[in-house]
Amino acid sequence: MTRIAIPEDSLFGLANLPYGVFSAPGAAVPRVGVRVGESVVDLTVLDDVFAAPSLNPFMEQGHTRWVEVREQVIELVSDDVPDAAVYSVDAVALHMPFEVADYVDFYASEHHASNLGRLFRPDSEPLMPNWKHLPVGYHGRAGTVVPSGTDIVRPSGQRKAPSDTTPTFGPSRRLDIEAEVGFVVGTGSSFGTPVSADDFDERVFGVVLVNDWSARDIQAWEYVPLGPFLGKSFATSVSPWVVPLLALEAARVATPPQDPEPLPYLLEKNPWGLDLELTVSWNGQVVSRPPYREMYWSPAQMLAHMTVNGATSRTGDLFASGTVSGPAKDQRGAFIELTWGGKEPIEVNGQPRTFLEDGDEVVIGATAPGPSGSRIGFGEVRGRVLPAR
Amino acid sequence: MTRIAIPEDSLFGLANLPYGVFSAPGAAVPRVGVRVGESVVDLTVLDDVFAAPSLNPFMEQGHTRWVEVREQVIELVSDDVPDAAVYSVDAVALHMPFEVADYVDFYASEHHASNLGRLFRPDSEPLMPNWKHLPVGYHGRAGTVVPSGTDIVRPSGQRKAPSDTTPTFGPSRRLDIEAEVGFVVGTGSSFGTPVSADDFDERVFGVVLVNDWSARDIQAWEYVPLGPFLGKSFATSVSPWVVPLLALEAARVATPPQDPEPLPYLLEKNPWGLDLELTVSWNGQVVSRPPYREMYWSPAQMLAHMTVNGATSRTGDLFASGTVSGPAKDQRGAFIELTWGGKEPIEVNGQPRTFLEDGDEVVIGATAPGPSGSRIGFGEVRGRVLPAR
Repeated sequence: MTRIAIPEDSLFGLANLPYGVFSAPGAAVPRVGVRVGESVVDLTVLDDVFAAPSLNPFMEQGHTRWVEVREQVIELVSDDVPDAAVYSVDAVALHMPFEVADYVDFYASEHHASNLGRLFRPDSEPLMPNWKHLPVGYHGRAGTVVPSGTDIVRPSGQRKAPSDTTPTFGPSRRLDIEAEVGFVVGTGSSFGTPVSADDFDERVFGVVLVNDWSARDIQAWEYVPLGPFLGKSFATSVSPWVVPLLALEAARVATPPQDPEPLPYLLEKNPWGLDLELTVSWNGQVVSRPPYREMYWSPAQMLAHMTVNGATSRTGDLFASGTVSGPAKDQRGAFIELTWGGKEPIEVNGQPRTFLEDGDEVVIGATAPGPSGSRIGFGEVRGRVLPAR
Repeated sequence: MTRIAIPEDSLFGLANLPYGVFSAPGAAVPRVGVRVGESVVDLTVLDDVFAAPSLNPFMEQGHTRWVEVREQVIELVSDDVPDAAVYSVDAVALHMPFEVADYVDFYASEHHASNLGRLFRPDSEPLMPNWKHLPVGYHGRAGTVVPSGTDIVRPSGQRKAPSDTTPTFGPSRRLDIEAEVGFVVGTGSSFGTPVSADDFDERVFGVVLVNDWSARDIQAWEYVPLGPFLGKSFATSVSPWVVPLLALEAARVATPPQDPEPLPYLLEKNPWGLDLELTVSWNGQVVSRPPYREMYWSPAQMLAHMTVNGATSRTGDLFASGTVSGPAKDQRGAFIELTWGGKEPIEVNGQPRTFLEDGDEVVIGATAPGPSGSRIGFGEVRGRVLPAR
């Protein structure tokens, strides 16, 4: 038996307990585990539902069961754990933690939407007339949501600079990131039935970090009128640990004031945002610290909007916030904003940089307040750029 | 034993043999069958892979196996078939024929794109500068792709007429259809690896009819800048029979001339379109006959474009053509075009009509040339509008 050591300042203490899917050394079949300190505990010792390569079967069991299991996990890891169920986090391989059903990407940061509006449409008002009335969003490609650590091959596609008369084909020259927060739907809702904003806690299982890789040149040429497509669909990376919503009580904060008041279906009894502090590291250097608390639209408003037309939601649906950007320059969550469309390079390890070069590595991390002044970690979403094929 | 009668002029003769998922009377578990004349033959007599509630396991087996099984099916149904494997098509329940992985909707008709451009953006050029360079498309919601016969609850959402100062919430007042053709990916392609246009036949299993229900008022207010979202995501209906690509050799036709010549990755050795004749019936009256042969972008160009950035494709991916509209008014595949944004009502059963009213039923059907002057049927995709909840 093993007693798991949890350093007092660990970001993965008993107040966190995120779930992930891992392979033990030499084991062929992935299963669900929980992270505690620097250990991963195999949860099949609790329930066979965890003998699966994704969290979906457990998430389908619903909110009551999530609460029960969380209590059981706290009890399990607070006492001696069978040796065979405990692994060092450095010894296991981490996989995609859930099977993505539909993937939706929102655009919920006023700072990001305003910056992108200025950059993509310099001659118009930066915010569209609809932006403060509804959380603007669109569907992305579920099949290319990949786990942290997956290498990202630079995408090729059609690009046309304003000065070109026709488009050319080739590797993206403006490869970018978007630092986002993603919400994982645990229990779905049926065809034709909207989910109320106040039902968020019942429905949403947990939170991951998202890097929504973006080829800005491909996107700029293709996106009118039906929205981003190939500029985004080549890859979206997520962090391997799903932090349960149940661990984020202390991280809840008020959302910024919303003016005009949203329509009634977007109102919450107790509006809340999340006080996540993100970090964006570019080749090891932190270049931005986007504050999630600045996001205009709340997570519950996004879910209510996404289903208000009766759209089905399913276990494994992932909806992401859109780029998290704060008001300050060093709080911007995309390089196109940080470098103002490439015109204002930033210094990374002593070099002036704009968009991503082959070999670059980006790591997005986050922490949030836990109980009694502690902090909770989200781990990281990491990805390295490989040359175009 | 039963010898299946196939009337000489049947749209479901030996040259067609579409696959679907059905429940026999009293049977709980759906399985895969093939349609022959007015019969459905249970294919579990051939292979256990058909004892599944979707075509996905069979499609995953790949092109060589699709060819083999097609030959086996022709042999099977040309001889006496065990009684227990034969059902009248009227006696069975038909289900969603495959599990949708990602759903993409293109915009491949020049007539449709031009008409919509004039209606949505009356002060600009109807076709965007990118339109003739790439097949414009976007991701839709896989979780709300539903089988023919599913009732469609009128969606509610935000709508704002140009004369309104703020949006209001309520049931869509401009509920519409889009008559489309959908392509079902049988074998996927891996992360980072584009699919060449010439590999279409290896990858794509078959063809379905699609009704991409559209709430034009919700769409008009939300779609800038990230594209259609809730105006489309409430429901997309597909026909229950997947017509194998192998049945459509005689239906191949040249595509319309493309000017300018597309970039090399969009070129095919033998460019081909499909000579499907669609019909759109509104409460029993045929109001439009959209000709698929008029589509500007070919099916193989859509697949090549969708994956050129390295996006993974998967078994069960559905990509639809976008509304099929021909040059003539009675060849338009959406009511917003047929009635010119509601300003030119058409007569349906003696009444002037614009958008869909509660209780309306829309049926989209299609046929295509088969061998030796015969015709092949696609069955139909049917849906009725229920009042908003």
